[in-house]
Amino acid sequence: MSAAVETISRHACHGGMLGYYKHQSGATDCEMKFAVFEPPQAAKTRAPLVAPDTSPRVQLPGDRDSWDFGIAAGFYLNATQSPWAPHYRMYSYVVEELPAVVVANFNVDPHRSGLMGHSMGGHGALTIGLKNPQKYRSLSAFAPISAPMQVPWGVKAFTGYLGEDRAAWGDYDACELLAHGRKFPDIILVDQGMADKFLEQQLKPELLEAAAKAAGQRLELRMHRGYDHGYFFIQTFMRDHIDWHARRLA
Amino acid sequence: MSAAVETISRHACHGGMLGYYKHQSGATDCEMKFAVFEPPQAAKTRAPLVAPDTSPRVQLPGDRDSWDFGIAAGFYLNATQSPWAPHYRMYSYVVEELPAVVVANFNVDPHRSGLMGHSMGGHGALTIGLKNPQKYRSLSAFAPISAPMQVPWGVKAFTGYLGEDRAAWGDYDACELLAHGRKFPDIILVDQGMADKFLEQQLKPELLEAAAKAAGQRLELRMHRGYDHGYFFIQTFMRDHIDWHARRLA
Repeated sequence: MSAAVETISRHACHGGMLGYYKHQSGATDCEMKFAVFEPPQAAKTRAPLVAPDTSPRVQLPGDRDSWDFGIAAGFYLNATQSPWAPHYRMYSYVVEELPAVVVANFNVDPHRSGLMGHSMGGHGALTIGLKNPQKYRSLSAFAPISAPMQVPWGVKAFTGYLGEDRAAWGDYDACELLAHGRKFPDIILVDQGMADKFLEQQLKPELLEAAAKAAGQRLELRMHRGYDHGYFFIQTFMRDHIDWHARRLA
Repeated sequence: MSAAVETISRHACHGGMLGYYKHQSGATDCEMKFAVFEPPQAAKTRAPLVAPDTSPRVQLPGDRDSWDFGIAAGFYLNATQSPWAPHYRMYSYVVEELPAVVVANFNVDPHRSGLMGHSMGGHGALTIGLKNPQKYRSLSAFAPISAPMQVPWGVKAFTGYLGEDRAAWGDYDACELLAHGRKFPDIILVDQGMADKFLEQQLKPELLEAAAKAAGQRLELRMHRGYDHGYFFIQTFMRDHIDWHARRLA
């Protein structure tokens, strides 16, 4: 382990090791945390899974005024507006800095990476995957914000982080990216609960489906009757997603 | 659902339904919560799993002064000391009242029940199972407090809830119950992590092992190298416990 990464705690889990770590990030100019699961196979081959932070761990004016903006809601973009711009650079952090830190400190094969996320994290997975098809082999999402420019969560976040000019927003909107020729080389898996209270107002998977169809992007969108937005939905279908990625990263 | 039980929330999960409920308890003289998982099979047959509260949901003087006594730490006993006695009656609540509430409100077979718990809950499972062998068909624990009369957690709890007279304590100590002829008709499964920071001071599975051997109680004690006291330990071996109970409740 390089001196740049500090271990917070490590826990045996399912025959492997789940660890929490922290490090000083250049991208976000603050200390960041991440988790790595090293499965039993990691002793012999290269294979961990990484979960990053959802926003920079800084304190900025107004960052705790609402739960869908600021702290915990970085939207995986590089902010251009004050006071967010110096720290809210989660796009660069997740795409460039964190993978390099993980490769330097764990037994990882950098050529076998996948992306998975939930809700805002699903938006992050989709947009990062569409913009970096050469970096990732597999892509899946749970209940993603599919068209942030067309929903309240996204308009609020993009206005705050990127400013009023909507021309700057399209680079962080999965449907816009698809409309402008970005594609992921593999089929994208998306699971969505039909009892999700955010489905109609914020998530709008039908827009992703239409954009994928128009762009010729392969998409497996699975709608699940009765499931909501929470952990019980995620845990139910997590195994499918792990299997999905494992087959493509084998 | 009877009027006595109020639904807090329900969530589709693994093809079944996980629900949170509350009701007015006579045993603890306050409102209590519990969770029920109804697996997919519950639509056709009787089969839920129930998770109760860990202490009465009341506010009493001093009940938040420490994390190992009072709120969240009821020790599954019927307190005799002031101010705990009117409310801290988790033994009667778990053994008598809650099962009746569940039977009245869910598609449950009261003749097929098992007990499982972790840490203080493992102590609860062991002592309740040993005292009520006719009520439960299966019994397992994760990292249980095996001999509370011989460890700081137990001495603190029993002194506070039951008073200084140790004669009243043995009724809530698994090793004491075994020494006095109580037995569970089936083999008891216990999993324990060897990196558990409470192992030597508070849990002492070796005392349970010795008491079981002396009493002729069948016990499968599994010591797991590297595992600690937390959720990652529990989730790793939870499937084994579910299978253990399912086989015996079939």
